[in-house]
Amino acid sequence: MSAVTSTRVVLASRPHGEPTPDNFRTETVELPALSDGQVLLRTVYLSLDPYMRGRMNDAKSYAPPVAVGDVMVGATVSQVVESQSLRIEPGAYVLGYTGWQSHAVADVNSLRALYPDRAPLSTALGVLGMPGFTAYAGLLKIGRPQAGETVVVAAAAGPVGSAVGQIAKIHGARAVGIAGGAEKCGYLRDELGFDAAIDHRAEDFADQLKAAVPDGIDVYFENVGGPVTAAVLPLLNFYARIPVCGLVSQYNIVSAPEGPDRLPAFMGLVLTRSLTVRGFIQTEFIQEMSADFERDASGWLADGRLKHREDVVVGLEKAPDAFIGMLHGKNFGKLVVRVGPEQD
Amino acid sequence: MSAVTSTRVVLASRPHGEPTPDNFRTETVELPALSDGQVLLRTVYLSLDPYMRGRMNDAKSYAPPVAVGDVMVGATVSQVVESQSLRIEPGAYVLGYTGWQSHAVADVNSLRALYPDRAPLSTALGVLGMPGFTAYAGLLKIGRPQAGETVVVAAAAGPVGSAVGQIAKIHGARAVGIAGGAEKCGYLRDELGFDAAIDHRAEDFADQLKAAVPDGIDVYFENVGGPVTAAVLPLLNFYARIPVCGLVSQYNIVSAPEGPDRLPAFMGLVLTRSLTVRGFIQTEFIQEMSADFERDASGWLADGRLKHREDVVVGLEKAPDAFIGMLHGKNFGKLVVRVGPEQD
Repeated sequence: MSAVTSTRVVLASRPHGEPTPDNFRTETVELPALSDGQVLLRTVYLSLDPYMRGRMNDAKSYAPPVAVGDVMVGATVSQVVESQSLRIEPGAYVLGYTGWQSHAVADVNSLRALYPDRAPLSTALGVLGMPGFTAYAGLLKIGRPQAGETVVVAAAAGPVGSAVGQIAKIHGARAVGIAGGAEKCGYLRDELGFDAAIDHRAEDFADQLKAAVPDGIDVYFENVGGPVTAAVLPLLNFYARIPVCGLVSQYNIVSAPEGPDRLPAFMGLVLTRSLTVRGFIQTEFIQEMSADFERDASGWLADGRLKHREDVVVGLEKAPDAFIGMLHGKNFGKLVVRVGPEQD
Repeated sequence: MSAVTSTRVVLASRPHGEPTPDNFRTETVELPALSDGQVLLRTVYLSLDPYMRGRMNDAKSYAPPVAVGDVMVGATVSQVVESQSLRIEPGAYVLGYTGWQSHAVADVNSLRALYPDRAPLSTALGVLGMPGFTAYAGLLKIGRPQAGETVVVAAAAGPVGSAVGQIAKIHGARAVGIAGGAEKCGYLRDELGFDAAIDHRAEDFADQLKAAVPDGIDVYFENVGGPVTAAVLPLLNFYARIPVCGLVSQYNIVSAPEGPDRLPAFMGLVLTRSLTVRGFIQTEFIQEMSADFERDASGWLADGRLKHREDVVVGLEKAPDAFIGMLHGKNFGKLVVRVGPEQD
């Protein structure tokens, strides 16, 4: 057959602070022929997640940066177009990590089969995928909420935060969400059953937060950093736990902000309140917890205790703008790009 | 018998920043008569420890502050002068918490018997007491050093730090101490068997530290904060653990230092290296670990694997100056005040 091409979004240049559309470039490349054990994939959904901002920098982290000129990384739901493996047939759906592109060649060993009759395909990128697992592992393994304790989560209307609050409730804790705007806060309270939801854009945000946690805060699930964290810190109880999952408010910071230097006071609080502050990446817990997660999350999803919401952008060419907007909280629900139709 | 008096050092005023001798006042009071279950104690040794600086402030912490006019708190080794309890006889030695004074009336239930034939009496305030237990619990429970890992400890010539390094060695880890001055560093290397010891006063301190940890740092036992911590942070490995035991360099800080604000970068490091930062007070672990500690520490002390050093100041009237000096690292070894002779 004739050569297959892939339209893809590559990292054109590294951002200095805020990413701009100029940091991305769309190009079309010819894909190589399949070797044994490989499949040709057509991307259906591309996941956009805050961690991708870190991969755009050339900095030491848990994962290597994306090289300039390389395709942007990302989890994908794809349909198999052609297979050189006995293990998978054309037409099947798979979860992979093929990035911001319309087609890809992948080793079958790097893929996981998906079954559209069991759950909507896109949930593999959200509530049943990495974001859901991040919430589950970080909350249960590091946050360890006890019945009656108060759990506060930032970016609470996002895919991680909304799962954190709901799983906290399932475990008998009080869930307080922090989100941007009245619409997201109403959703948290009315649709997801959070005990309280506070708009971090409100002028009296810190006072509202204090009023919402009369018994203090036992677990603060950190997704954002910045002023939200500053309002949370004085409310932390002795032995409070802070799973540090993300810091989206500071990903675009270029140099240390002006003073005063808040680090000494923070360390003093860690000491005098016996706090646990623990950074994590969900991959650390996959071996230990993924089977439990799959059983629990699919059960909760089926019985309605775990709800989710998606923000679907149509067309790969919209990915850069959607990604830039997400870093400012413009999405409402798990942000995915529909790169192609579910059925070809 | 005629009334017994006690000479005692009280908190005269709260310090603003550095404590000064004016913050203390010596006075003599008449002690009340003994009730049932009480004993009259004559203080032999008073322990001076950095945590006492925190008690001089009127701030929310794990323990209430000392009230202005009250006797300064502190652990003591005392001899029983008179007893209204069948459980203890005059002449016996006890560990108590009677503070900076020559005599005290105490409930027998608040005391623990000491046996001078088993270990020198003053070790109950140091290597076999709270500082030793702090090192043991914080290192083993939070730091969890594995064989071959690198443990760095600040204030390493002090009673907690010296035990941390030695217990790390006993568990097969590499121990690197940070201390002030060549004499203390030599002691750590030559007497205590640390793998390296770095003088934080050296101009090229950060470079020396980096050279001493070719495999990075897996556990940083935090006693000091400030510039020492700043040099440690870039050297931390993925999954490093930081038991936060003390922050002696910042106890006298009155307001947040000038910027830049280092908190965002610190949280970023916690996230990208999956760090664990955990404040603690040794009391948290007493129920769980004190029996193990007593068995292990007395065994190691007896077989020479756990060495210790004391800095003994003679006379209660010297306590304020000795305490102020300790906050600047002027002591060399566990600082104790000999308030009275061991044998009356």
